[in-house]
Amino acid sequence: MKCVKCRDKAAVHIRRHNSAFCPACFQEYFTNQVARAIKEDHMFTHRDRILVAVSGGKDSLALWDVLMNLGYDTAGLHIHQGIFEYSASSFAKTTQFAEARHAKLITIDLAAEGDLDIPGVVSSTRRTQCSACGVIKRHYFNRVAVEGGYTVTATGHNLDDEAARLLGNVLRWQTPYLAAQSPVLEATHPRLVKKVKPLYRLSEYETAAFAFLRGVDYIVEECPFSHDAIQLQYKEVLNQLEQRSPGTKQSFVLGFMREGRQAFAATTEVHLKECPSCGYPTTGTVCGFCRLQQEVQKAQAGGRK
Amino acid sequence: MKCVKCRDKAAVHIRRHNSAFCPACFQEYFTNQVARAIKEDHMFTHRDRILVAVSGGKDSLALWDVLMNLGYDTAGLHIHQGIFEYSASSFAKTTQFAEARHAKLITIDLAAEGDLDIPGVVSSTRRTQCSACGVIKRHYFNRVAVEGGYTVTATGHNLDDEAARLLGNVLRWQTPYLAAQSPVLEATHPRLVKKVKPLYRLSEYETAAFAFLRGVDYIVEECPFSHDAIQLQYKEVLNQLEQRSPGTKQSFVLGFMREGRQAFAATTEVHLKECPSCGYPTTGTVCGFCRLQQEVQKAQAGGRK
Repeated sequence: MKCVKCRDKAAVHIRRHNSAFCPACFQEYFTNQVARAIKEDHMFTHRDRILVAVSGGKDSLALWDVLMNLGYDTAGLHIHQGIFEYSASSFAKTTQFAEARHAKLITIDLAAEGDLDIPGVVSSTRRTQCSACGVIKRHYFNRVAVEGGYTVTATGHNLDDEAARLLGNVLRWQTPYLAAQSPVLEATHPRLVKKVKPLYRLSEYETAAFAFLRGVDYIVEECPFSHDAIQLQYKEVLNQLEQRSPGTKQSFVLGFMREGRQAFAATTEVHLKECPSCGYPTTGTVCGFCRLQQEVQKAQAGGRK
Repeated sequence: MKCVKCRDKAAVHIRRHNSAFCPACFQEYFTNQVARAIKEDHMFTHRDRILVAVSGGKDSLALWDVLMNLGYDTAGLHIHQGIFEYSASSFAKTTQFAEARHAKLITIDLAAEGDLDIPGVVSSTRRTQCSACGVIKRHYFNRVAVEGGYTVTATGHNLDDEAARLLGNVLRWQTPYLAAQSPVLEATHPRLVKKVKPLYRLSEYETAAFAFLRGVDYIVEECPFSHDAIQLQYKEVLNQLEQRSPGTKQSFVLGFMREGRQAFAATTEVHLKECPSCGYPTTGTVCGFCRLQQEVQKAQAGGRK
C-alpha cells in the first residue's frame, strides 16, 4: 500500500478514512488533525497558556509533543500517585521527556500532600483506587492551572477513550454525564479553568503510531489498579463494531457532539457553589476533594490515638 | 437450582433478575410481565380491539398467545411476503396456530396485491429486500387496522430487538429515530392506529422459552433475505456486555424510556400530511408505500412495452 500523499511506501493504515500514510506524512496528518480540532472546536489560541496533564503514557506525551511542535505555550503537570513501581516509572518517563525538550514540568507528589498517595488513601478510606484517583487528579489539575495563571487545561483523551466513555454513559443513560461529555468544557466559574481534549478525533492506534514514530519513550504498562475492566470491555465491543464498519467510533463520538449532546445539555442545569474548605467550585456543599482529604485526616487521627 | 416461587426444580434461569422458575411459574412470570407492561405503559385495555402482527416466529406467536390468555379482544394479521419456502412455512405455522385456538386471522397475500411480493418488488425496483418489506408491512399493518376498526396494533418486538435498535440509533445519533423509539406510539392522526410492543421488557431467551413451554410450533429459520447482519452484530455485542453485567440490556432500554427519549422528543417535531394517493398519513409528499407501488407499476408497464 502506498502513502496517499507522497506515494511512498505506507506505514500507517487508517481504515475509517480509507487512507494510508508513510511515516513523515502520517506525522503531518496527525498534527493537522490536532490543529484542526483546536481551531474548529475553539479550544485555544497561541495567546493561551496551556497546562497539559501528562501521565507518562503515549496519549499525554504525544499531545504535549504536538502542542510544542505547533508552537503553543505549554507546561506539563505530572501527578505522582505513589503507586509503587508504576508511578516511579511514569515519573521517570515524564521527566525524561520534559528534560529532552527543555519543557516546563510541574510535579505534584501526592504522598507529600498530606498522605494523598493512592495506596494510602485507599487503605485509610473506603474509596476505590480509581474513584480516589479521579477526584484527586481533577482537583490538582484545576488548582495548579488557576494558581499558575494557565488559561486552558488539556488532556490526552483519544477517540477510543471518548467512544468507550460515551457508550458507558448511554448504556446507563447518565444524562448529567452526557450533558458534560465534550472535548471542550468552558470555564463556568472564575476558579474553574477551561478543559480541552485535542486528541479526541484520533484513535488509540493513531496516537500510539505517532508516539512511536516520534521516538517518544512512554510507559506501556497499564496502572496496576486499573481493573476498570468495564471500560476495556466497552473498547473491545467498539473495536468489533469498528472492524466491521470502519468509522463507527468516529461517527458515534462526532455525531454525539453534533446531534446528541445538545439534547441533554438542554435538560441539565448545573449550579456551582464554592467549597467552604478550599474555595474551589463544587455542585455539592463540601467539594469531593476536601471530603476525601477529611476522611484521610480522620483516619490518621484515629490511628494516632 | 430451585424455582424462586414454588421451590420446585427450576427450568428457566433469568440472570438479570437473579432468579429462576419452574415451567409453570415461568409462564406465570412471563404473563405477569406482559400484563404489567400493558398496564404501566398504558398500552390498551379490555375494551380495545387489538390487531397483532404475526409472522409465524416465536415472538409474535408468543405475544398473541399471551394476549388471548389474558382475555384481550385480538385478531392476527399475517402478511404473506412471497419469499419462497420461507413464506409458505411462515404462513403454515401461523394458520395452524390460529386454527388450533379458533382465533381470527387476516392474511394479506402481497403477490395478489399488484405483485408486491418481496422478490417481485426487488426485481422491479432498486429497493433492498429489507427496506421494501419494512415499508410494505408498516403500510398494511396500519391500513388493515384502520379499515377493520382496530384501536391498537401490537408487535412482538422483545428486549433484545429494542436494545439492538437503540444501539444502532445511538451509534449514529439518529435523533428522529430516537424520538420515535418507544414501546407505545400514540395515534397522532385519525388514520394512524396506536402501536405497542408488549414484549419489550422480556428477552429473546425468555420469549423462546415461553413459546417452547407453551408448545407453540413456530418457524425457527430466519428470513433468507435477512442479511441485516449489522442488527445481529449489535445483538451480539449487547450479549457480551450482558454476559459480564446482567441487566445491561434492560437498563439500556428502560433507562432510555425514562431518561433518554424525552431529550430527543423535545427537539423533534413531526408534521403529518395525507398522502394524495392513498390518504394515509406521511411526513413526505407521496407516502413511501405509494412511491414503492408506483415504481413497481412503472417497471411492469416498461416490461409490457
